[in-house]
Amino acid sequence: MTITVYGFGMSGNCWKVATILRLTGRAFSWIETDSNAGQTRTPEFLALNPNAKVPAVVLEDGTVITESGAILLHFAESTPWLPAPGLARTRVLEWLFFEQYSHEPAIAVARNIITYLKQKPAQAERLRQCWERGAQALDVMERRLAAHDFLTDAGPTVADVALVAYTQAADEGEFDLARWPGVRAWVARVLALPGFTPLPKPA
Amino acid sequence: MTITVYGFGMSGNCWKVATILRLTGRAFSWIETDSNAGQTRTPEFLALNPNAKVPAVVLEDGTVITESGAILLHFAESTPWLPAPGLARTRVLEWLFFEQYSHEPAIAVARNIITYLKQKPAQAERLRQCWERGAQALDVMERRLAAHDFLTDAGPTVADVALVAYTQAADEGEFDLARWPGVRAWVARVLALPGFTPLPKPA
Repeated sequence: MTITVYGFGMSGNCWKVATILRLTGRAFSWIETDSNAGQTRTPEFLALNPNAKVPAVVLEDGTVITESGAILLHFAESTPWLPAPGLARTRVLEWLFFEQYSHEPAIAVARNIITYLKQKPAQAERLRQCWERGAQALDVMERRLAAHDFLTDAGPTVADVALVAYTQAADEGEFDLARWPGVRAWVARVLALPGFTPLPKPA
Repeated sequence: MTITVYGFGMSGNCWKVATILRLTGRAFSWIETDSNAGQTRTPEFLALNPNAKVPAVVLEDGTVITESGAILLHFAESTPWLPAPGLARTRVLEWLFFEQYSHEPAIAVARNIITYLKQKPAQAERLRQCWERGAQALDVMERRLAAHDFLTDAGPTVADVALVAYTQAADEGEFDLARWPGVRAWVARVLALPGFTPLPKPA
């Protein structure tokens, strides 16, 4: 039995998982699971992940692992995508938690509301908050990326995988990366690395 | 020079940092920094953490580390509070990311709105969302804790430190832990371990 990923093709969180599996040379199958259509709330899916979220990964022995940040770290352990314990690893971890707390809830949510749920007028106030918080997150990234090639001094790591996931699609949430030129150049730099396939554009 | 923690005494995220430092026997000094009063937005603080958030830790050599999840992992490395790499560690990481994405933004935010900002009527809609999301997070925890002493099979770890931080104060966000008896018993169990000091109650 091979690794199985329950994922939603438009989801940056799920894209992270496919990307680290490709980068570390692991075969996997993909079961498309549309969270916008309720497919993470079925009894079958809740048995895999009671938190009703993709991605969920089923390992060769049937063990299920969840949370994109934890999945990235699981598969990156002992590879060049995750430095050894110590300050270099801690820098990667800082960015992974930053992504889930300060970046994704603004930039991914704006994208989903505008481009996939198509609720821009109905969710105007929530979008305003997403744009404010998302701009702050991009400002934090720009401070680093204006003068560095990657998010940490360890070269490309899972920090770059995690942050590029939704930053590459920030325009779909109406963030104009022209305001953050270091971030924009970094997106292109990361996506040009071997093994990266961009997140699909909406149909 | 000793370790310096910039923290806000009522913040569970900052409490996590003080707790892991005590649990691993490190001396530290504490600089009280009230994020509700704008003290994380001063030029001096932004030089420490451009993301304008506590906790921020200054190590003995002046290096700054941020993000409570990353700080927990940094200090827990090579101690009993963090299992070695592999599935046992991944289980801890799953809970740390769950806490920052699915738990804290609901349970900590409800507590801050009601008990510290005192904006319950003005933020009624946001509170409704916090209560819904927070109840789901507590449901996920209850599935584990109804039949287990700690969040992972590795005994008490930084996963328990991270999740107990705001769960211990869930009542201040008007969550009644009587609905989640396994969670309630686990809070008491964790706080009774040597080295734990409960989060202060509001004045």
